Amino acid sequence: MADSKNRVAIVGASGYTGSDLIRLALRHPNISIDALTGATHAGKSIDQVFPHLSGCNLPSLVTNDDVNWDTIDTVFCGLPHATSQKVIKELPDHLKVIDMSADFRLRDTNTYKATYGNTHAAPELQDIAVYGLSEHYREQISRTRLVACPGCYPTATLLLLLPLVQQQLIDPTDLIIDAKSGVTGAGRALKQTTLFSEAGEGMGPYAVAQHRHAPEIEQELSRAAQQEITVNFTPHLIPMSRGELVTCYARLTKDNNSKQCKQALADFYKNDSFVALSPEGVYPQTQFVRGSNRVMLNAYDDRIANRVILIAALDNLVKGSSGQALQNFNIMNGYAETTGLEQIALFP
Amino acid sequence: MADSKNRVAIVGASGYTGSDLIRLALRHPNISIDALTGATHAGKSIDQVFPHLSGCNLPSLVTNDDVNWDTIDTVFCGLPHATSQKVIKELPDHLKVIDMSADFRLRDTNTYKATYGNTHAAPELQDIAVYGLSEHYREQISRTRLVACPGCYPTATLLLLLPLVQQQLIDPTDLIIDAKSGVTGAGRALKQTTLFSEAGEGMGPYAVAQHRHAPEIEQELSRAAQQEITVNFTPHLIPMSRGELVTCYARLTKDNNSKQCKQALADFYKNDSFVALSPEGVYPQTQFVRGSNRVMLNAYDDRIANRVILIAALDNLVKGSSGQALQNFNIMNGYAETTGLEQIALFP
Amino acid sequence: MADSKNRVAIVGASGYTGSDLIRLALRHPNISIDALTGATHAGKSIDQVFPHLSGCNLPSLVTNDDVNWDTIDTVFCGLPHATSQKVIKELPDHLKVIDMSADFRLRDTNTYKATYGNTHAAPELQDIAVYGLSEHYREQISRTRLVACPGCYPTATLLLLLPLVQQQLIDPTDLIIDAKSGVTGAGRALKQTTLFSEAGEGMGPYAVAQHRHAPEIEQELSRAAQQEITVNFTPHLIPMSRGELVTCYARLTKDNNSKQCKQALADFYKNDSFVALSPEGVYPQTQFVRGSNRVMLNAYDDRIANRVILIAALDNLVKGSSGQALQNFNIMNGYAETTGLEQIALFP
Amino acid sequence: MADSKNRVAIVGASGYTGSDLIRLALRHPNISIDALTGATHAGKSIDQVFPHLSGCNLPSLVTNDDVNWDTIDTVFCGLPHATSQKVIKELPDHLKVIDMSADFRLRDTNTYKATYGNTHAAPELQDIAVYGLSEHYREQISRTRLVACPGCYPTATLLLLLPLVQQQLIDPTDLIIDAKSGVTGAGRALKQTTLFSEAGEGMGPYAVAQHRHAPEIEQELSRAAQQEITVNFTPHLIPMSRGELVTCYARLTKDNNSKQCKQALADFYKNDSFVALSPEGVYPQTQFVRGSNRVMLNAYDDRIANRVILIAALDNLVKGSSGQALQNFNIMNGYAETTGLEQIALFP
Repeated sequence: MADSKNRVAIVGASGYTGSDLIRLALRHPNISIDALTGATHAGKSIDQVFPHLSGCNLPSLVTNDDVNWDTIDTVFCGLPHATSQKVIKELPDHLKVIDMSADFRLRDTNTYKATYGNTHAAPELQDIAVYGLSEHYREQISRTRLVACPGCYPTATLLLLLPLVQQQLIDPTDLIIDAKSGVTGAGRALKQTTLFSEAGEGMGPYAVAQHRHAPEIEQELSRAAQQEITVNFTPHLIPMSRGELVTCYARLTKDNNSKQCKQALADFYKNDSFVALSPEGVYPQTQFVRGSNRVMLNAYDDRIANRVILIAALDNLVKGSSGQALQNFNIMNGYAETTGLEQIALFP
Repeated sequence: MADSKNRVAIVGASGYTGSDLIRLALRHPNISIDALTGATHAGKSIDQVFPHLSGCNLPSLVTNDDVNWDTIDTVFCGLPHATSQKVIKELPDHLKVIDMSADFRLRDTNTYKATYGNTHAAPELQDIAVYGLSEHYREQISRTRLVACPGCYPTATLLLLLPLVQQQLIDPTDLIIDAKSGVTGAGRALKQTTLFSEAGEGMGPYAVAQHRHAPEIEQELSRAAQQEITVNFTPHLIPMSRGELVTCYARLTKDNNSKQCKQALADFYKNDSFVALSPEGVYPQTQFVRGSNRVMLNAYDDRIANRVILIAALDNLVKGSSGQALQNFNIMNGYAETTGLEQIALFP
Repeated sequence: MADSKNRVAIVGASGYTGSDLIRLALRHPNISIDALTGATHAGKSIDQVFPHLSGCNLPSLVTNDDVNWDTIDTVFCGLPHATSQKVIKELPDHLKVIDMSADFRLRDTNTYKATYGNTHAAPELQDIAVYGLSEHYREQISRTRLVACPGCYPTATLLLLLPLVQQQLIDPTDLIIDAKSGVTGAGRALKQTTLFSEAGEGMGPYAVAQHRHAPEIEQELSRAAQQEITVNFTPHLIPMSRGELVTCYARLTKDNNSKQCKQALADFYKNDSFVALSPEGVYPQTQFVRGSNRVMLNAYDDRIANRVILIAALDNLVKGSSGQALQNFNIMNGYAETTGLEQIALFP
Repeated sequence: MADSKNRVAIVGASGYTGSDLIRLALRHPNISIDALTGATHAGKSIDQVFPHLSGCNLPSLVTNDDVNWDTIDTVFCGLPHATSQKVIKELPDHLKVIDMSADFRLRDTNTYKATYGNTHAAPELQDIAVYGLSEHYREQISRTRLVACPGCYPTATLLLLLPLVQQQLIDPTDLIIDAKSGVTGAGRALKQTTLFSEAGEGMGPYAVAQHRHAPEIEQELSRAAQQEITVNFTPHLIPMSRGELVTCYARLTKDNNSKQCKQALADFYKNDSFVALSPEGVYPQTQFVRGSNRVMLNAYDDRIANRVILIAALDNLVKGSSGQALQNFNIMNGYAETTGLEQIALFP
């Protein structure tokens, strides 16, 4: 029944985001992967670029120009920011587009330029682009044809903080976000800092107070708080491939404690399959969600009175990128939201 | 339709073998996981023992005595050797049993005793036990009610060597097997050698010339070679969680080279979903099969004339244990052999 | 000239703290390692317990009772807390004692009991015990015969924060300390959480708001701030063997910024060999101090106005334990403070 | 007394070989590091290139042309092969040169060309170049002004096999060398295969039967065996930064066993500080030599009659490169051979 399937193209399939999307899409009963594109690797079979995908009957990599878009229903875009907007802008209108880059995440083009350095090449598309934080924008996602999937850090942070800010349980003006990510977060591009011998057996912060995900977090928190919010956001590079943990430190509004935060999170996500409190007595840990689309959250009393510690763990390549993209695909196309995403975490 | 499903009990569910089987079985459309047992953890929910399995609606851990075997169709046994045989012996006859321990792998009870130190408690069951190397014993597996799943090292080694020995392409009397395994191979029991700080950032051999998997390899190779075979088998512990690689060094029989070995392997496994040559130009690597039931094989010319280098990579917890167990379950019950095992490798 | 050397006994030599002290002490020109004790390993050669120390002509492990204390000048104590105090209490008065356990760190015995659970067995020794944060208690250390070496986290945190609190550059009532440690911090004892397969390829928090190092940090900050201080302290376990990073989030007192904090730290430690700002453009990272007694510090402007981010990296087994112990030994005995501690970090 | 010291230049100081040499040389009492060169990093302080070396009062990186060779006594050369020979050829004659590249290891220029692809640019220097396997060429090293330090794999392999081949305990025509190396062996250059996310949590072979160290091993074994020797040499990349293990499989000559091999190794190295059998009951492991110049060897009986398993572990950057270079420096200059190399292994 290939003709009843949604015909998918993955643009920029030679990065980790692309390959993890392929891994998931291969198990999606309603997807037919009909085109894979990659600039430098065009002409190669996917086996050569990602040997773990060998034997899956996938199309070879081609250039974007080689794709007959008439035969495609949905495009997943795994290109770097700035490139993404140029490619998406040229795509025919009948296509649904799920962008995993940063290009359509920031609603304000000035903020985009200040953050990413280039003038936006497709500002007109920003009107229709929906911020793809699935659990919070489900309705809008279902009605658009262009979804901008959130960054990995914003996904973890916002899933954790948005319900609490919305319900005014925590003070949005005093948020400290200490984030930790595995090395795949830096992509497959060659950098000295992500060599095994440099990133292994050690750790440290990077992009302190300057990370590009901070404005994205601030955009959404400001919206929820109905005031301009600035956050502390300090990412650290951890010697593991996948996984992301955010530890947030917040001031409680009067009379609250961690129990109420816990309850608010449990209530907000009670019908969601992928977001849940960690089990009783278990802290959120990235090992427990590796390879899956799940997020583990929890809230703890601080030693300092009137403060709370909020923690979320996810897999940066799945819920932090390709998994959420596929979740949005399901929402856009009316499939059950969990389709193709039932993978259990790979532990150990 | 739970009643149309195969009702499964996993005995010894609190080890890595048990938890990885749960991970896979949860995705198997014909399995209902109806009982999980564990001696020390009986009474706990699986969430407490394996937080990555939280939210999966699994039964709590109970003791073996608490299981009503009448309501069970199949038992997967993840107990340690010596314990396994005592438990299996007491199970009612209507049950199909898939044992992941070493207890029924060795056909000769003297070899068993010499290797594992104890007199076998259920020698009568050895007559019906089938060695569960799926691709080589499919027919017998389909007809028995007791399958002894091979050890992880024998699985990798035998899949690689058996076709070549059977076809007399290599000399079975001069086989060197240099094996490398991730740390999960040692299980979840507490040992100083498997602490992160001891096993990390370093490596070395263990159980040199004394590993218990050697007699198992020799049993099967002897059968294929129709003569008594002794092999070199030298395992090494590698600082990674999952994954196993065997590098075998063999003397070619007259006029052969690696190309013929390659062809023989490709031919033998041409209808098998889980065993294949690595793609052109790609060496077998454990990263490429992590979390999946796949095996990557290949053959290379040696620098020394008339010798060949044979390499196989698999995930020790999947094809090396729980995945092959599930594959055997499919064979025993007439399900498509790949059911529940379509997981793509998790890379990176 | 063995007789001109300081004759040293290391009590509890079979843990990581003990072995790392041996590593350093072997290179100290004024030390003769004359006794090594270990309860469970007494009778063994050190080669059997720590093969990396083979060939170093070290004495075998004995019990404490087997040591002739008359022939010893200095005792380093690497025992667990609660045990340490009982052993030290019985030692003859002529001995200088450098305790690496938690037993004499907390000046208040009630705080000790509340934190560690047992009534202190040697409260009389707390009067003479000096808190061994070398750079801050040098004078007192030089005059005592009992030094309580700080915990690893307090060492990193206090070296970073004390000068700033003392100079009132930051508000001591609003301190968030997000700490990250390698797995050796948990010691060599067998625990499921520190198995390679559990702690590798993932991370998470532990002992949130309940870690025993928090009261120790509060004791010293309270002293510096001249008021009762409570801090947030949230440790995380990182998949690396050695290394510790603390990321502290502080509110600046009026008109300060990170530049002044930086300057204050540079000034305070200008004559210290082991504590320094990280080089221009380089964040403190644990890789850069691995195996050495050095601490890398720095200060950064936050995105939030009037806040500062303070970061310190050290090796938890060296400056966080055995290295600082040896530094205190040098201070107590009038040797140059860097003697035996000139090791350059091992990178990569 | 700077003027009584040996004035050293390190050419190509921005790689791991260079930086590890700096680490060791800084502790050598007779060395003054007077020049550090690096092509792409010239002009930078070493702090920027290797932050772990900050605070060591090292000269900044310059180009080779900027060095006044008249003020230098010894040059350590850490350049890539092919480049090394061109640079060394132009150096003034008064300099002692210790080359850590492959350029002067192969005595036969045809073998060099066949192996490395380029015609040797300084064949005249090959007459004076001594193969710097310290324990085997001590006498010649002490008399030359140009030492070619062996590759890391040849160092481990030859230290293990040469005494046994020389004493005809093993058959040199049937040698299988299964080698495992940490990722630093691939250097600091940017390669996809050595990214953390590619090399971590997995392993595999590389350069099977084609590694450039094989001809080097064959050269020396042929010399010892007094016949042309071809070996099997199969390297594997292991997810650790430092460390190298070779597991060699050999056929014994009549009437020998592992005990005689063990004895032969113990006897041969009885006066050597850096090469020793692993302690009783302990297998050679890379963890036990990390960061040190030591080699751990041992011999074990095979399961197959008349065969022996020979194992050696070393740190590829130390005894496998910079440490042996410094050892050769000591030999060339009449210093005690262990000077500056007394570092104990960093474990864990």
